[in-house]
Amino acid sequence: MFKLFYAPRTCALASHIVLEEVATPYEAVRVDFSKNAQREPEYLAINPKGRVPALLTERGVLTETPAILLFLAQRFPAAQLAPLADDFALAQLNAFNSYLCATVHVARAHGRRGARWADDPLAIEAMKRKVPANMAECFALIERHMFVGPWVMGGRYSVADAYLFTVSGWLEGDGVDLGKLPKTQAHMKRMSERPAVQRALAQENAAP
Amino acid sequence: MFKLFYAPRTCALASHIVLEEVATPYEAVRVDFSKNAQREPEYLAINPKGRVPALLTERGVLTETPAILLFLAQRFPAAQLAPLADDFALAQLNAFNSYLCATVHVARAHGRRGARWADDPLAIEAMKRKVPANMAECFALIERHMFVGPWVMGGRYSVADAYLFTVSGWLEGDGVDLGKLPKTQAHMKRMSERPAVQRALAQENAAP
Repeated sequence: MFKLFYAPRTCALASHIVLEEVATPYEAVRVDFSKNAQREPEYLAINPKGRVPALLTERGVLTETPAILLFLAQRFPAAQLAPLADDFALAQLNAFNSYLCATVHVARAHGRRGARWADDPLAIEAMKRKVPANMAECFALIERHMFVGPWVMGGRYSVADAYLFTVSGWLEGDGVDLGKLPKTQAHMKRMSERPAVQRALAQENAAP
Repeated sequence: MFKLFYAPRTCALASHIVLEEVATPYEAVRVDFSKNAQREPEYLAINPKGRVPALLTERGVLTETPAILLFLAQRFPAAQLAPLADDFALAQLNAFNSYLCATVHVARAHGRRGARWADDPLAIEAMKRKVPANMAECFALIERHMFVGPWVMGGRYSVADAYLFTVSGWLEGDGVDLGKLPKTQAHMKRMSERPAVQRALAQENAAP
């Protein structure tokens, strides 16, 4: 049985949703970020990066959201969460996930984790100030050039939808005007109607 | 025939090497970063992100190094550049590539592209100062927990090797002491002996 190590309101939600979508038994293990548990030896033995998500499988631990999402799509092909038989379409999906991971999530992290990239408190404040504009720019690009609709990749729901929904959920807190992102808003609504999404959110929002 | 849009000394080298490894005909198109050509309408029509690499295929453009590398490995299975039949091993490879893309390359970008994340010139200087320590930390983690040897994933060469070699090539310029990274050094040497690597580098280093 898989074990997903997660913390609420992090990118681990994407993997959590996909585990619900594929309907495999799994255990969700909360890592208490308020106690910095992700930096404790016990967790570092699972994921030396000290981050979530980490997915414990029968063969070992996997990390990095794009890798976990593709793994789950491949392991559970009946769920049809990725165009596994079409190398180009699959690459487009992987490119979308990579953009969320390496550009959008990174842009957002400068609002909360600036100390990763500078020690000067004023620099960390300067990074925070740029987050709303950067996130708005990323999502404008997504709406203009990447999002096909009604799902990310077009007519078929995929793991990219779980990931986009996860990152979209941060926008309001990051000071981005959702009114300017109609496709994103409609996608968030569509996602929140899926039972798998509701189950994952209910688990994450339950008292620890 | 594929067209690879690249600039020298960027992460596009990884895709360039893999195109040489799979021995398919392709055209390498240099994007002149010194003239900011990646921001000109002509290039933005190819890749609206204004970045390299972009791989033009018979079905359209692909971006994001991890996606391009997996696409090439899948399109040319005879080259055996990824464990395509093993979902867990493939996920480990994708996780490695994702780490290079979203953490290591990002750590490095703060030395040259700090304006992405802050407007204050002092903040940008503060980011630069942290690059050597961050890159050293990333590579220490890679050597301790990810790199199997003699290749990234173990006995078999893969697209992850082309990517690691590309990022390793930045370390000296980023002020990282290579003497403390013996596995990385040995890997760089092993890579530089491969004819495909030599051909890609020769093309990129040739006068424009």
